[in-house]
Amino acid sequence: MSLIVQKFGGSSVQSTERVIRVAERVVATRQAGHDVVVVVSAIGDTTDDLLELAGQVSPEPVPRELDMLLSAGERISNALMAMAIEALGTPARSFSGAQAGIRTAATAGRARITEVRPDRVRQTLDRGAIAVVAGFQGVHMDEAGESTVTTLGRGGSDTTAVALAVALKADLCEIYTDVDGVYTADPRIVSDARLMEHVGYDVMRELAISGAKVLAPRSVEYAARHGIPVRVRSSYSAEPGTMVSGSAGAAHAEYSAVAGVAHDASKAKTTLCGVPGSPELTARILQVVAGIEAELHYSVLDASWTSRGRPDISLVLPAQDGPPVLRALREESAELGFEDLRYAERIGKVSLIGSSLLSQPGVLATCCETLAEAGVQLETISTSDIRFTALCPADQLTDAVRAWHAAFGLGAPELAVVHAGTGR
Amino acid sequence: MSLIVQKFGGSSVQSTERVIRVAERVVATRQAGHDVVVVVSAIGDTTDDLLELAGQVSPEPVPRELDMLLSAGERISNALMAMAIEALGTPARSFSGAQAGIRTAATAGRARITEVRPDRVRQTLDRGAIAVVAGFQGVHMDEAGESTVTTLGRGGSDTTAVALAVALKADLCEIYTDVDGVYTADPRIVSDARLMEHVGYDVMRELAISGAKVLAPRSVEYAARHGIPVRVRSSYSAEPGTMVSGSAGAAHAEYSAVAGVAHDASKAKTTLCGVPGSPELTARILQVVAGIEAELHYSVLDASWTSRGRPDISLVLPAQDGPPVLRALREESAELGFEDLRYAERIGKVSLIGSSLLSQPGVLATCCETLAEAGVQLETISTSDIRFTALCPADQLTDAVRAWHAAFGLGAPELAVVHAGTGR
Repeated sequence: MSLIVQKFGGSSVQSTERVIRVAERVVATRQAGHDVVVVVSAIGDTTDDLLELAGQVSPEPVPRELDMLLSAGERISNALMAMAIEALGTPARSFSGAQAGIRTAATAGRARITEVRPDRVRQTLDRGAIAVVAGFQGVHMDEAGESTVTTLGRGGSDTTAVALAVALKADLCEIYTDVDGVYTADPRIVSDARLMEHVGYDVMRELAISGAKVLAPRSVEYAARHGIPVRVRSSYSAEPGTMVSGSAGAAHAEYSAVAGVAHDASKAKTTLCGVPGSPELTARILQVVAGIEAELHYSVLDASWTSRGRPDISLVLPAQDGPPVLRALREESAELGFEDLRYAERIGKVSLIGSSLLSQPGVLATCCETLAEAGVQLETISTSDIRFTALCPADQLTDAVRAWHAAFGLGAPELAVVHAGTGR
Repeated sequence: MSLIVQKFGGSSVQSTERVIRVAERVVATRQAGHDVVVVVSAIGDTTDDLLELAGQVSPEPVPRELDMLLSAGERISNALMAMAIEALGTPARSFSGAQAGIRTAATAGRARITEVRPDRVRQTLDRGAIAVVAGFQGVHMDEAGESTVTTLGRGGSDTTAVALAVALKADLCEIYTDVDGVYTADPRIVSDARLMEHVGYDVMRELAISGAKVLAPRSVEYAARHGIPVRVRSSYSAEPGTMVSGSAGAAHAEYSAVAGVAHDASKAKTTLCGVPGSPELTARILQVVAGIEAELHYSVLDASWTSRGRPDISLVLPAQDGPPVLRALREESAELGFEDLRYAERIGKVSLIGSSLLSQPGVLATCCETLAEAGVQLETISTSDIRFTALCPADQLTDAVRAWHAAFGLGAPELAVVHAGTGR
C-alpha cells in the first residue's frame, strides 16, 4: 500500500460533472489499495473572476485581503470534491490550507511555505478516509499565534501537492491537468512534438521557468530538493503521462544534450539605453524593480549610437508589470543616468533545454543558424549549460520554436535517442 | 465615541457597486467618531448558488463539507468589503468567523455560538481601523484543539452581529436590510402597514418566529438576553428604521395589547389522525421528527369520525422537511398507532403579536369573528399571552393578514396609540 498525492487543476474541476469524474478517479485509486490525498485548485476561472471583483471595489486591493478573497475559491472546490467522494460511498474529509498545516511566511500573494504540519491529514488517512486539501493557500502564524490566510501565487496548488507529498513521505505526487504530459515543445505550435515518458527534475525546472505551463517551477524545485517523483498526466485519459524524477543530465548525457523547446509569449521588455556601466547602478535598477520577476540582460549592441559604448540593459518581465516598472524607472531617471528608455509590450522568448549544452559548440551555432534561416531576428541570446534563451520579436516566436524543434530532431521518432531520457 | 456593529445582508452587497456604497456608509460612521465593526453576509444569491453546486455533486451533501463550502461565500464579500473600505483611505481588516473568535458547538449547518473571543477585532479597533467580520460562520475547536469550520444556519449573520456586539459591549447593533424597518404587517400585503419606530425584544422575537423575515429569531433572543439595542434599517436610505430594545409589554400595556401581524407561507402540515392519546406516544412522535423545527398542535376536531374521540395531532413544519418527516412517520406507523396520516403541502399561518393578549377576552373573539367575515376557514388557533397563531388554507392567508391588521386598527395613523411602543 502506497501513499499518493493527486492534484487536480482548475480545468479538471471546471464543472460539477467534472468534479464527479475526478471523484470517481480518486476513489478508484483508493480502491486499488492506496492512501490518497487530493489537492484541488479553484473551479475553472474562479480565481480570475474573484480578481475582477476585487478590481471593481478597489484600484489597488490590499494584498492581505486579496489572499482572504482568493482562498475562498479553493474552499469551494475542496468541499465539493469531498462531498462528491462521500457520495460515492468512500469517506473523505476536506481541509483548508491552514487545517492541512501549510504554514507560510507572511508575504501576501506569493507566500513561501515555511513548514508543513500534516497531522490532521495523516490522521484522516489512518482512519481509511481520503484527505482533500485546498490548494494554493496556507496560513501565516505570527509570534502571538494569530493566523492570517496567505496564498502561494500562480501555480501554488502544484506546490501544495508537492509539499504535502514531501511532508507525508508520499510514494508519488500526480499532477492531473488538461494535457497528456510534458512534450518536447508545445504541440499546439509544433505538430510533431513528442510526449516525454520521463524527464529529469533539472530539465523540467528549466522547461517550467522558460514557459512550459504544465508544472509550476517552484513545485519542481521543491520536488527535486526532496526527491519526490512527480507524474504529470491528463485528467481526461488513463495514459501514464510524463514521470518527472531524478536527473536526466548525468545518466543520459551519452544520448544527447537537447531535451525540448519551451517558449513564453507573456513577457515585455524594457531597455535602458546607454547606462553608465557601474555595478552600483545595476543594483539600483534591480532595487527599483524589486518584487517583480524579471531577467536582466546586458549588452553593448552597437557602440556607434550609444555614446562612449555605454551598455544597454534590458529587463524582460511579465507584461502586466511593464507599466509600473516603466513609471518607477522614469521617476529614478536622474539617478540611473540612462540616455534613453525603450519598451516593447511583447517580446518572444524561446528556450532550448538540455544538458551539457555548452560542451558541444555545435549546439549554439545551430541555434543561431536555424533562426537566421527561418527569418527570425535574434535580439539577444543568453546561455547556460542547461538552457539557451533567445529573445526575438513576438510575431516571430512560433517560427523560432519550430525551427529549433526541427533542427535538433526532437519530434522524429527515429531520432528518439535525442530524447533526454527514456529510462525510469 | 461609541462602538457600533453594522451588519449588511446579502442584498446590500449584491454587486460590487453596492459594496462600495456600503463601504462609504461604514466610513461615514467611522468619520462621525465611532468605532465600527462590519458584519457581512454572502453576496446576493451566493449561498443558494453554492447549495445548488453541492446538490449537483451529492444527493445528500455531508453537513461538515457543506459548512466548509458555504463559509466561502462570506469570505468573499468580507474581503471585498475590507478592500473597498481601504480604497476609501480608511484602514480596515477582514476576519473569518474563526479569526473573529466566533466559537461554536460542533453541530454542522446550524451551530450554536458557545463563546466569542473578539481579541483580534478589539485590537483592530484599538488601532483605529475598521474590523470586517464574515457573518454566518464560526469554528468548532475539539479537545485536541483541532478546528472545524461551522455555519450558524439561515439568518446566522444577524446572530454573528449581535454576538459580537455583546462580546465587545457595543453601544448599538445595526442590521441593514432591503426594507425600511419593522412594520405592523408585511407592506407588500397590507397597503397601510405602518413602520414601527420602536419595538420591544419580546414582540420582535414573536414577529420573527411567526414569519417576519427582517431579523432572525435567534439574534433577537441573543440581543434581549444581553440587553443590546438593535436598530433595523434600510441600507438604501438614511431613515432611522426601527429600534428593537427593552420590553414593550410592561411599559406600554396601558395603550394597547396588539403590536403587529406576522404571517408565514412556507409551512406544511402533517396530521396524525386518531392517535392513542398517551404522552409517551407524543414524545415518540417528537423523537421521530427530532432535529426538525416543528410545532405540535393537538385537537379533537370531530369525535364522530375519529374512533372513540382519539385526538388528532398536527405538525406544522418547514415545507422542505415534509417528505422526509412523512417517510419517517410511516416507518413508525405500527408503533405510533394512528388511524390515518394526512398531509398539506402548504398551510397558511397568521400570527397576532402583542402583550397581555389573554387578559382581554375581546381580542380572541375579534380574531375569530374577522376571519369568519373575511371568508377565511380557521383550521386551528393557538394562544399565548403574547401571540395568537391561526392556521388556514394557504390561499386564504393574505385575506387573514389583512383582516386582522384592519380589525385592530394597526395601520390607521389616528389609532397610533394601538402601536406597541412609541417611546425609546
